[in-house]
Amino acid sequence: MSKEKYTIGVDYGTESGRAVLVDVATGEEVATAVHPYGDGVIDEHLPGSDEPLPPDFALQNPQDYIEVLKETVPAVLRESGVDAEDVIGIGTDFTACTMLPIDKAGTPLCMKAEWRDNPYAWIKIWKHHAAQPEANQLNEVARQRDEAWLGLYGGKISSEWLFPKIWETLNKAPAVFGAADRYIEAADWIVLQLTGEEKRNSCTAGYKAIWNKQKGYPSGDFFAALDPRLRNVVDEKLSRRIYPLGDRAGSLTKEMAALTGLRPGIAVPVGNVDAHVAVPASTVVEPGRLVAIMGTSTCIMVLGEEERVVEGMCGVVEDGIIPGFFGYEAGQSCVGDHFAWFVETCVPPAYHDEAERRGLNAHQLLEEKASQQKPGEHGLVALDWWNGNRSILVDVDLTGLLIGATLATKPEDIYRALIEATAYGTRVIIEAFDNSGVAVDEIVACGGLPGRNKLLMQIYADVTGRELKVAGTEQSGAFGSAMFAAVAAGQMAGGYDTIFEATKKMARLKDVVYKPHPACKAIYDQLYAEYLKLHDHFGRGTNDVMKRLKALKQQVLAGS
Amino acid sequence: MSKEKYTIGVDYGTESGRAVLVDVATGEEVATAVHPYGDGVIDEHLPGSDEPLPPDFALQNPQDYIEVLKETVPAVLRESGVDAEDVIGIGTDFTACTMLPIDKAGTPLCMKAEWRDNPYAWIKIWKHHAAQPEANQLNEVARQRDEAWLGLYGGKISSEWLFPKIWETLNKAPAVFGAADRYIEAADWIVLQLTGEEKRNSCTAGYKAIWNKQKGYPSGDFFAALDPRLRNVVDEKLSRRIYPLGDRAGSLTKEMAALTGLRPGIAVPVGNVDAHVAVPASTVVEPGRLVAIMGTSTCIMVLGEEERVVEGMCGVVEDGIIPGFFGYEAGQSCVGDHFAWFVETCVPPAYHDEAERRGLNAHQLLEEKASQQKPGEHGLVALDWWNGNRSILVDVDLTGLLIGATLATKPEDIYRALIEATAYGTRVIIEAFDNSGVAVDEIVACGGLPGRNKLLMQIYADVTGRELKVAGTEQSGAFGSAMFAAVAAGQMAGGYDTIFEATKKMARLKDVVYKPHPACKAIYDQLYAEYLKLHDHFGRGTNDVMKRLKALKQQVLAGS
Repeated sequence: MSKEKYTIGVDYGTESGRAVLVDVATGEEVATAVHPYGDGVIDEHLPGSDEPLPPDFALQNPQDYIEVLKETVPAVLRESGVDAEDVIGIGTDFTACTMLPIDKAGTPLCMKAEWRDNPYAWIKIWKHHAAQPEANQLNEVARQRDEAWLGLYGGKISSEWLFPKIWETLNKAPAVFGAADRYIEAADWIVLQLTGEEKRNSCTAGYKAIWNKQKGYPSGDFFAALDPRLRNVVDEKLSRRIYPLGDRAGSLTKEMAALTGLRPGIAVPVGNVDAHVAVPASTVVEPGRLVAIMGTSTCIMVLGEEERVVEGMCGVVEDGIIPGFFGYEAGQSCVGDHFAWFVETCVPPAYHDEAERRGLNAHQLLEEKASQQKPGEHGLVALDWWNGNRSILVDVDLTGLLIGATLATKPEDIYRALIEATAYGTRVIIEAFDNSGVAVDEIVACGGLPGRNKLLMQIYADVTGRELKVAGTEQSGAFGSAMFAAVAAGQMAGGYDTIFEATKKMARLKDVVYKPHPACKAIYDQLYAEYLKLHDHFGRGTNDVMKRLKALKQQVLAGS
Repeated sequence: MSKEKYTIGVDYGTESGRAVLVDVATGEEVATAVHPYGDGVIDEHLPGSDEPLPPDFALQNPQDYIEVLKETVPAVLRESGVDAEDVIGIGTDFTACTMLPIDKAGTPLCMKAEWRDNPYAWIKIWKHHAAQPEANQLNEVARQRDEAWLGLYGGKISSEWLFPKIWETLNKAPAVFGAADRYIEAADWIVLQLTGEEKRNSCTAGYKAIWNKQKGYPSGDFFAALDPRLRNVVDEKLSRRIYPLGDRAGSLTKEMAALTGLRPGIAVPVGNVDAHVAVPASTVVEPGRLVAIMGTSTCIMVLGEEERVVEGMCGVVEDGIIPGFFGYEAGQSCVGDHFAWFVETCVPPAYHDEAERRGLNAHQLLEEKASQQKPGEHGLVALDWWNGNRSILVDVDLTGLLIGATLATKPEDIYRALIEATAYGTRVIIEAFDNSGVAVDEIVACGGLPGRNKLLMQIYADVTGRELKVAGTEQSGAFGSAMFAAVAAGQMAGGYDTIFEATKKMARLKDVVYKPHPACKAIYDQLYAEYLKLHDHFGRGTNDVMKRLKALKQQVLAGS
C-alpha cells in the first residue's frame, strides 16, 4: 500500500470515552478526542427520576456509549485531516465487568419503555457494589464444593464480576432477569452495535465470568447450588462461544458508518478491557515483563507460558491478554488515590502557598521535597491499604497503617512513605509471581502516574530491584484498541496479521529507564522486610484489628 | 488577725518565670506577672560567644532567675495594690532536674570570670540531653548490680536527672567538676538566694537524685562502679540533709527584700517542682485522686500510703509531694505537643480557612467536628508515641502509629484518634497503679489543656471510666508555691500549719465534672483492648520495628 493507513481506538472509561487516531505504520498518535458521558455514573437516581437508588449502585446509560462514537470519531477525523478512506479499522476497550441485560435484538432493557424505570434493567458498571451478599455466598459455596477454578482467581470472586451481578438481579428483580434474553459485557455490546455481530471476547469472559479456555464455565451443578434458577444461566443468558483477542468480530455496519463518518465494512476486533489492552500498547507481548497500569489504582499484568496458581491474583486466563499466553492479572487498590487523599486531607496551608508561589502543584512540591531525602531517612513505614488490599491478600476490609511518626515528621516524609508503601505492595506481588515460577524481569509502567512523578518511578525501581521503563503512549487503552483494530484489519488491508507484529511496529517505550541503585536497594530491602512483617501480621490474621475497627465503625454508624 | 494576708508563689518554667499573689484566707488569685528569661534556653552558644555548643545542650543563666524576682514580685504588688506588710511568705517551684555547680559561697561557677566560657559551668536545665551515654551506662551498671532502688524509678534513670548530668561534667570537663564545691538543684539554689540557707528539698532529691527517705542515696560502691572519682560524690558535692516539703527553709534576706519590695524576714519554704506543687493546688492531698498536669506533655501524680513498685513510674518518693505520703510520678511525653504537631503538619487549608471565617482557631474547629462523632465511628486507633513513651514503657525510641485509615478518613477523625490515644495512654498508667494496689478513683486535671478542650476531657472520662474534675487555678505551679509559702509562714503569722489545712482553705475545683457515659465507655473498652494489644506488640519487643526504623534513620543520616 502506498498511502498511510490509520486505525481508531476507543477507550470507554468510567466517566468518559476517548478516541485516538493512530498511524498504523508508525504508531504515531495523530489525534485524540474525549467525550464525557451525559448521564455519567448513575448512583443517586435514574435519569428523569427522583427515586433514590439503593446503596452501592453504579449504573450507566448505553446511549452515552453511542454518543461517544458519534462525537469522538468525527472529531479525530476532523482534527487529523485524515481521509476516512484511509481508516482501516476501529477497536474498543471498556471497563469491566460492566454488564447489561439485552433483549433478543440486542437492545438494552433500560432503553425499552417497560423497563426504563427499573434500576436493574440498566448497565451495572464495574464499581457497582450492591452484589456483595451474592459474591459472599458464591465464594462460600465455591469453597465448600472445592471448585478447582477458585484458586485461579485468588480464592475469591469479586462482587464486581458477572455472576454476582446477575444473581443480584435474580434476587432483587426476578422479572428483569426473566425478561433478559441475554446478559452481555458492555465491551461486547458495543461491538455488537458496531458490527451487528455478537462475538464475546476471551478477556472479559475469562477475568470476569469464570470462563476457562480448556474447561469452560463452572458447572450447572455449581450454579444450581447457588440457586436452582441459575442452573442453566450460561446457556440461557450468556454464550459458550468465546473469541480470542485480536479476532475480527465483523465489519462496521452502514448505520455506524453513517454515525461516525467512517467507511462501512472496515474491521472491528472483538471487545477488550482497558487494562488488558494496555499490555501490547506498552510493548509487552512476551513473558518476563510486568506491565503496571498506574493511576488511581494500579493494575498489574504479566504473561506466562503456563497456568500457575499465584497467590492473590485477580485471575489467570489463557488468551486473556495476548493470544497464546496465560495472562495474569493482579492489582493494588490504592495508588494515585492514596497520594490524592493525602494532598487533599493532610497537607498544611504553608505547603499549598509555597507550591502556588512557585507555580507548582502540591504533588510536585512534595515530590521535590521528598526527593531530597535518602531511603530510610524519614523513619516511616506504611501499609498501603487505605482502600483495602487487592493482591495478594484479596481483602477489602484491610485499612491503612502508618508507623514511625515523631513530632519531627513532615508532610513530605509521609508522602514519600506512602509512595514507598505502594512500591512495597508491588514487590509483594512480584515475589508472589516469582514464588510460583512466573518470571518478572522488568517493569513497564503506563497510565497517568509514571509521567507525573519521577521520584515514584525511581522508588519503584529501587524497591523492586527491577528496571522500570515507561510506555510511549499516555493513552494506553485507546492506543491498544487501535493496535487490535490494525490486527483485525489484517496485513492485506494495510494492518498486521498478529498483535506481535502490530506491537513491534506501533508500540514504543519512552527514552527514560529507571535503574535500581544498589545502595538504595539495600536499604529498601531492610524496609521491605519491615513492611512484610507488618503485612503478614495485620493481613494474615495474627491481629485482625483492622477488621474489628471496621466492624465496630459499621455497628456504631448503624446504631446512630 | 484582722487583716487579709497574702503569699506569693513564683513558678520557674522553661522560658519564663511567673508570680502570683494569693489571698491566704480565700485562695483568690489577686495578681499575676510573667517575666521571660533574658537568655532563654541557651542551646546554640553561650551568651557573648559565637562558639557552638555541643549537641543536645540546654543551659540557662542564673541571673535570669534573679531578674524574675526583681520584675514579677514588684509587679504583682503594684497590680494588686496589696501592702508588702501583708505578704507573709514567698514560695518557689522549678523545672527539674535543673542543676548547677556552685562555689563555697553559693555563687554559680558560670558567674565567675574564670569559668564563664565553659558551658559545663552553666545551669543544665531539665531538657539538657547530652548526658545520655552516662545515663545508659548508669542504668547498665545498676541492672548488673541489681540495685534495689532501680525498680522505684521504672527500671530506668533518665539522662535528664542529676547523676548523669554530674557524671557528664566529670567526663567532659573534669576541671569544672573539681572546681564545684557543690552541685545543687536550681529549686534549692533560688531558696539559698532568698534566705541565705541551703536546705535541699525532698522532692528533687527523691525524684531526680535517687534519694530515699529510709535508705538515703545509692551506695558509694555503686558510684565507684560508675567511676572511682564518684565514690564520695554525695558527701563531696551534694548533701545528705534533705527537708520535707512545706518546711520553712528560712526567712527572706534584707538584700532580697530590697530587690523584691517585700518585708525582710517573711517565710520562704523549701524548694519544689512545678508538677509536684500542682497536686495540692488541684485540691489533692490524699490517696485515690490522680492529678494530671496536662500541657505539651502530661505529668501524672498519685499519692499512696505505702511504697509499691509500679511498672514504668518515673519515681516513687516518700514525702515527695505531700508530707506523710508516698508520691508516685508517671508521665506521657506527648499530649498537647501531639495535637499541635497535627494541626501544624496535617490540617489542610480548607479547615484553616473555615476556622478563620468563623473566628475559631484550628483546634477549636477540629474539636467541634470531632465532637459530632460517636466513639468508634472513625475506625482509627493510634499509639500516642510521637515523642516516645514515658510511662509505663519508659522508652524514648518508640514512635507513633496510626491504624485504620481509609480514603474517607478526615482530619477530625485523626485528631480525635490522637486525643483518644493519649487517653488510652493515661488508662494504661491508671491500670498499672491499680495492678500494684495504688488506687485511682478519680482524676483531677490541671495545666493548660483542660480549660481549652471539653471533648478531650469527656474522652478521658469515657476511656478511663473515672470522673474528671478540673483544678480551679490555671497556674497550678505558682499557686501551689503560694500555698506552701502560707504553710511555711504558719498559722501564727496568718498562714496555715499544714499543707492539708492550706489545701482545704485555698485550693478549689472548677464547677464542671466530666462523668463517664456508660455507652461510650463500653465502646472505648473495645478500642482500649485494641490499643493495648498494639501497645504490647510494638512496645514490649514482639516487633521492634520502631527501634529498627529509628536506628536505620540515624545510620542513613550519619552516612549523608
